[in-house]
Amino acid sequence: MSNWLDEIKWDSDGLVPAIAQDYQTGRILMMAWMNREALNLTIKENRAIYYSRSRQQLWRKGESSGHVQTLHEARLDCDADVIVLQVEQIGGIACHTGRESCFYRVHNGDADQGEWKSVDPVLKDPKDIY
Amino acid sequence: MSNWLDEIKWDSDGLVPAIAQDYQTGRILMMAWMNREALNLTIKENRAIYYSRSRQQLWRKGESSGHVQTLHEARLDCDADVIVLQVEQIGGIACHTGRESCFYRVHNGDADQGEWKSVDPVLKDPKDIY
Repeated sequence: MSNWLDEIKWDSDGLVPAIAQDYQTGRILMMAWMNREALNLTIKENRAIYYSRSRQQLWRKGESSGHVQTLHEARLDCDADVIVLQVEQIGGIACHTGRESCFYRVHNGDADQGEWKSVDPVLKDPKDIY
Repeated sequence: MSNWLDEIKWDSDGLVPAIAQDYQTGRILMMAWMNREALNLTIKENRAIYYSRSRQQLWRKGESSGHVQTLHEARLDCDADVIVLQVEQIGGIACHTGRESCFYRVHNGDADQGEWKSVDPVLKDPKDIY
């Protein structure tokens, strides 16, 4: 039997990058990693479940923070090695810093005098999240 | 002198993932990889320049296809190991299959009887692109 999980080109660690995007605004919230079990559970439970490379275990997004990502749609790219998740971000906060998105630093566009500047507000103190 | 490139947490191969997003529609177009030189040139030349892991060389997106990605904004995530590029996709086609986005396959949402289904149109025959 063909299996949709077998179509994925897992990397040498058995992982693929997964990009979470707000399904309404299109804002890119974060990128994390998934192994086979994480992707299977994400579809089964209809919420984002990643694989934490640092903790080397499944990471049920929102388990301690409550900031669950409800799945609306999962997409696969042409090379079958990257996933995009369209999600509803419960609580409006994806980042552990208390911001909506992990991508809160913008480059000033100058290669010689380059700078990454934080431009997005902290919506909730991380102390109050975890 | 501090350098914005030194803030990036390059992986063991000296790379980071870079996600290209249409700056107007928010559509996620593709994900590719960058090394230090690629990211520096992307900022300097104001267009997406990746590092091709298969060809092991810089990949000036659009060089043969004309489908250049003009840079509007570059963002860095909280862990400093993923880049988001807000781009204008020249020609409206990012994917080598002739589609707007590489993420043209949608999962049917069924973990047991899962399936990835192509849902986006081919806008141009790849034979006419390359």
